[in-house]
Amino acid sequence: MGATMTLTAERTAAETFLAEATELLGAKGITQDPDLMEPWLTDWRGRYTGRALALASPGSTEEVAGLMKLCARHGVPIVPQGGNSGMVGGATPDESGRGILLSLRRMDRVRDLDTGAGQVVCEAGVILQSLHELADENGLRFPLTLGGKGSATVGGLISTNAGGTQVLRHGTMRAQVLGIEAVLADGSVYDGLTALKKDNRGFDLKQLLIGSEGTLGIVTAATLRLLPAPTARVTVWAGLSGIVEARTLLRAMERAMGDTLEGFEVVPAHCLDSVVAHLPDARPPLSQRHEWNALIEFVASGMDEGRLRERAERALAEAMEDGLFDDAAIAANETQAEDLWTLRESISAAERARGPAMQHDISVPVEKMPEFILAAIPAIEGEFPGTRGIAFGHLGDGNVHFHILAPAGAVPGEWEEDEGRRVSGRVYDLVTDWGGSISAEHGIGQVKIGELARLGDPVALAMMRSVKRALDPDGLLNPGKLVPGA
Amino acid sequence: MGATMTLTAERTAAETFLAEATELLGAKGITQDPDLMEPWLTDWRGRYTGRALALASPGSTEEVAGLMKLCARHGVPIVPQGGNSGMVGGATPDESGRGILLSLRRMDRVRDLDTGAGQVVCEAGVILQSLHELADENGLRFPLTLGGKGSATVGGLISTNAGGTQVLRHGTMRAQVLGIEAVLADGSVYDGLTALKKDNRGFDLKQLLIGSEGTLGIVTAATLRLLPAPTARVTVWAGLSGIVEARTLLRAMERAMGDTLEGFEVVPAHCLDSVVAHLPDARPPLSQRHEWNALIEFVASGMDEGRLRERAERALAEAMEDGLFDDAAIAANETQAEDLWTLRESISAAERARGPAMQHDISVPVEKMPEFILAAIPAIEGEFPGTRGIAFGHLGDGNVHFHILAPAGAVPGEWEEDEGRRVSGRVYDLVTDWGGSISAEHGIGQVKIGELARLGDPVALAMMRSVKRALDPDGLLNPGKLVPGA
Repeated sequence: MGATMTLTAERTAAETFLAEATELLGAKGITQDPDLMEPWLTDWRGRYTGRALALASPGSTEEVAGLMKLCARHGVPIVPQGGNSGMVGGATPDESGRGILLSLRRMDRVRDLDTGAGQVVCEAGVILQSLHELADENGLRFPLTLGGKGSATVGGLISTNAGGTQVLRHGTMRAQVLGIEAVLADGSVYDGLTALKKDNRGFDLKQLLIGSEGTLGIVTAATLRLLPAPTARVTVWAGLSGIVEARTLLRAMERAMGDTLEGFEVVPAHCLDSVVAHLPDARPPLSQRHEWNALIEFVASGMDEGRLRERAERALAEAMEDGLFDDAAIAANETQAEDLWTLRESISAAERARGPAMQHDISVPVEKMPEFILAAIPAIEGEFPGTRGIAFGHLGDGNVHFHILAPAGAVPGEWEEDEGRRVSGRVYDLVTDWGGSISAEHGIGQVKIGELARLGDPVALAMMRSVKRALDPDGLLNPGKLVPGA
Repeated sequence: MGATMTLTAERTAAETFLAEATELLGAKGITQDPDLMEPWLTDWRGRYTGRALALASPGSTEEVAGLMKLCARHGVPIVPQGGNSGMVGGATPDESGRGILLSLRRMDRVRDLDTGAGQVVCEAGVILQSLHELADENGLRFPLTLGGKGSATVGGLISTNAGGTQVLRHGTMRAQVLGIEAVLADGSVYDGLTALKKDNRGFDLKQLLIGSEGTLGIVTAATLRLLPAPTARVTVWAGLSGIVEARTLLRAMERAMGDTLEGFEVVPAHCLDSVVAHLPDARPPLSQRHEWNALIEFVASGMDEGRLRERAERALAEAMEDGLFDDAAIAANETQAEDLWTLRESISAAERARGPAMQHDISVPVEKMPEFILAAIPAIEGEFPGTRGIAFGHLGDGNVHFHILAPAGAVPGEWEEDEGRRVSGRVYDLVTDWGGSISAEHGIGQVKIGELARLGDPVALAMMRSVKRALDPDGLLNPGKLVPGA
């Protein structure tokens, strides 16, 4: 009887909240239609499915603020969502159905573009691809890109501090955000959109909000930097005998090529074999098989391509003389350059096609990565007989995709839940022993919150909990994500 | 009688605390000697003098942590201090004498230097000049410098997010810190020294601590980035007709010279006249007098000087053809380059010699700075007849030194306290109206805390107070600084 009464009271509270929210947002701005909500209640990788009271799609910062005030008054949790292309379930609500799923996709206006200053003010829902196109049309460039660019939104990229393949030179999303606007837990609006290169008026609230996965505030707009469009690009594929040699080559290229070095990706023979077997048109770029390969890219603006190529050729010739690599091919044109990048970008799919594997998005200090790979792969393979370890990706960022392939005969869907889990635990133990991060790029979300609780520095976790409680005392902003024990 | 009893009780509490602190730190680590304490109780500009229970000089992070725990247990405030060369009284205790002055100067070890990775782990007390020398000896460079480099410490530079003349290209201190170690209000040690280029395990605690003026934690060590030493430098002095033209030239140089553009400082005719009058050996670099001047510096590493010079000359020739400036001189050698920088660096002293002035360290969006200068100077001169406004400095950062010179006949030491104060208030009003910062570089400390309370965004100030209370609930870390109403 008591339970029923409570349930009725809850329903009434929810109904009151929904009526007020509908009045605020209009019929266009909120829905409970299961068909409309369904695509957004499961994460991109299909690992989590949640429930929500409703899907709210406000059209303006004022509406987000108004909704947040309603949520605060009624104690309704709110889960912000961008393109729903995240990898860690960070934008998927829990199964309680108590909260609101907040889509920022309707807020997709470009509020201001200043080509002279190289700045654009975007709302949270602007899609990365659209931003690239806008920059391109104006002779400019937004220097961050990643696989999900067709759906990833500015708000999501900021909330997760997205990375990609240009971090070596241009940094993660943290480096692209010049200003930010966010709705806080009490519905107040933090307006930090004005881009000031220098400002020492207090704590860095902008960086505090970036990468906080919607747990401290809802990013509604941002001022982003745009760079001059590149005028020259030189792409190189080099064959090497080892991963230690790859680091030496990386340092030599940094010294010789300075800021023109934009990408330095490593690809072991195993991955190249997989890609060549998987893609019908793919051919190995070099005549011989090499234990390791490096995909290197130099980019410059304000310099013609002949000059950059000449400089790169000189630097490579010197490195070859010093024995830093065995063979290399320089892309003769854009098509060849794209073909080299296709090899790199097809690795995940090609490896997946070979069977079940546990994938880890990890980092250690750049300088230590070769030794980490050389130590961690045999350690895991020794502990879990029949598994095979491979590592590929952003050596220049100290961030590789560290995959452990299941033993032959492992049952897909079963192995991952059983031995696979233990494998991942050991990988994260090793990464932590080496001073690294269990999440270099993808974030914590729901997927890794347990591992963060287990392996994170207790002092850092205590600081995070204190800050979380300070800025969201009722725990309404994206509960259950990122901050263990919040 | 009651008052005396309280006083005695307090003395006893202080004595107990001091006995425990002495046991912890040893005689070398703490003193109450007024002669030893005196130089550190007044700020560098001589505007504030405080009192302290004692001067503690711990020799290690463990000792700082132990002292902080004692402070927490006894409720004793603590004021961290580096080189005591700050501009805003941020490292000077208040007059209550209740707190400890904490010198980090004994902690001056370089814990680790990795020339391959371009990283150095310094304790808080390492002096900037020593860091420059260390980098230099190793063919590297620490890309931040400023006037007080002979006394400024790494800890102070981090706590104040220092700037300088290379921010245009290399960013403020925020961009140089790869990792941080800090003692928190409860005496726990946040160890974030490991430099990871990518790490998405939660809030950006490092950036939260940087620039927090010791109000959230005590920085005890940091991992800093080092860059390859420059191999080429080209310094140019250009004469222009106006400040709007200076911005156009800045943009043209950015486009043509990319990342080699390291400095772009503007100097109005008034300042150059003052310097030439003030310095016995100074000569104007150009034959004609120009309303504005730009000091431009290009720096490259991994490129020979001839090539950089050739590129700069081509860019300047094009800009001249486009009418972007009237005349220019390129320094023929290092001595001439140094002479040009001496002109720039002597402006403050030369202007001071002309009489009383109110100095403001302000920023607005880079793109708006020319219009701000053109609007703000006549506004102030109109409101305060007889005053004269000048602006010089880091145009490329949107940060100028905005000086208002007193009317002829103003009494030094009196005018500043009277009309000068009202002048500053109006300058800060205008800066705020333009979306700018009342403190671009120097911080808030004690000097500007009232103005920040008056003009700061209430939402941002509320966030700051929440974070401050969360991480320092008893208000022991540098009380009375940076956070209004904390």
